[in-house]
Amino acid sequence: MRIDIVTIFPEMFEGVVGTSIIGRARTQHAVEINLIDFRDYSTNKHNTVDDTPYGGGGGMVLKPEPIFSAVESLVQEGKRPRVILTCPQGEVYSQSKALELAQEEHLIIVSGHYEGYDERIRQHLITDEISIGDYVLTGGELPAMVIVDSIVRLLPGVLGNDTSAVLDSFREPLLEYPHYTRPAEFRGWKVPDILLSGHHGNIEIWRRKESLRRTLLRRPDLMERLELSEQDHKLLAEIKREEGLK
Amino acid sequence: MRIDIVTIFPEMFEGVVGTSIIGRARTQHAVEINLIDFRDYSTNKHNTVDDTPYGGGGGMVLKPEPIFSAVESLVQEGKRPRVILTCPQGEVYSQSKALELAQEEHLIIVSGHYEGYDERIRQHLITDEISIGDYVLTGGELPAMVIVDSIVRLLPGVLGNDTSAVLDSFREPLLEYPHYTRPAEFRGWKVPDILLSGHHGNIEIWRRKESLRRTLLRRPDLMERLELSEQDHKLLAEIKREEGLK
Repeated sequence: MRIDIVTIFPEMFEGVVGTSIIGRARTQHAVEINLIDFRDYSTNKHNTVDDTPYGGGGGMVLKPEPIFSAVESLVQEGKRPRVILTCPQGEVYSQSKALELAQEEHLIIVSGHYEGYDERIRQHLITDEISIGDYVLTGGELPAMVIVDSIVRLLPGVLGNDTSAVLDSFREPLLEYPHYTRPAEFRGWKVPDILLSGHHGNIEIWRRKESLRRTLLRRPDLMERLELSEQDHKLLAEIKREEGLK
Repeated sequence: MRIDIVTIFPEMFEGVVGTSIIGRARTQHAVEINLIDFRDYSTNKHNTVDDTPYGGGGGMVLKPEPIFSAVESLVQEGKRPRVILTCPQGEVYSQSKALELAQEEHLIIVSGHYEGYDERIRQHLITDEISIGDYVLTGGELPAMVIVDSIVRLLPGVLGNDTSAVLDSFREPLLEYPHYTRPAEFRGWKVPDILLSGHHGNIEIWRRKESLRRTLLRRPDLMERLELSEQDHKLLAEIKREEGLK
């Protein structure tokens, strides 16, 4: 897979795309990541990429020409890659969108840094507008890194253990059960006996129950999307009794 | 404000916390950001920070001791700073949480990189668990950067124009109207006439209407939280007629 990131702050990305899983995936040639500075595509003498908004008001707006030129320089003859814009007005990002994007051969991510993008960029160049959440950030760089990280870890061969990606949170919309490791007692706080019992069947049921409990208590919105087995229904009834819920 | 980030990948943060608004805020002493490698607090001879889970199963779990020791070394006598854990099981991050955290004097953010955290870390050390969205990432580093970015830009004096932070998206849960800048015509695509009219009253109404339209079409979930004026109701009625909605 090839991912091109169109940004005026390529240096912001170095620490993230060079380290950890993304760094390893690049070394293994599972992914090629290119950073393209769209300031290089500005044609005016001061290399500006933004200007004041028509109609007045504060803030600056990213001009259409440099971003169109930068993106068009990356498109291979006859291909139509997805061109993603990171912005607060976009579709809220989710694991199912990550799984969808991980199927593509080539992605271009446009990540701006100012108040706004000229609307013609959205209308005529971008295929997907994505927001990573309902909070305000300084620019689109961190959202671009989040999208890249979520996709790269899904590519074949990237995670050491091929099952890890699948077993993670959000395969089904259920929060993870509590994890414990050594020491068995730390400052008087003990690991639950059941995890030391060696009885794998009971451990499975306990973990399922604690996942259901955590999801019910913390993210009741996720419960609606869950497909529950007969055992799950029994466990949920127990949890509701234990937690004093109806 | 002081923010301590407890991580085993401090180098991942360098590009982000040294650049742009966060870099500037540090230079201006509006914020002090420290990166603490919790591997330095491991007491075993191989400096490991993780171990296999009790009860079996794949993946590794972050041990309690190094993270407790690292965090405790950062707490000043008699103070009880917020200690944030970035994890998929947390409260979904939002602008109101960013505004809340921006009031604190000292934040500690724990950002792990493995499958899970020993549950005793959540129970006895952490005050806030935060998830930045419903997607799976390689580690908690990018979520920590997102949280830092969203908070630092809210600190007094950090943004050049003090009104910018307030005027951004999510002050009220409404998406931004379309922005346009020069050229007035680009590849045949023109800026809407109204923005060139110089009539500020009409421009204000057009912008409000397009904000409402975008929010209604893209994020109907946000509409419920909106406080609508009489004019808003009139504009919404027009939009629904124009879009063929009931």
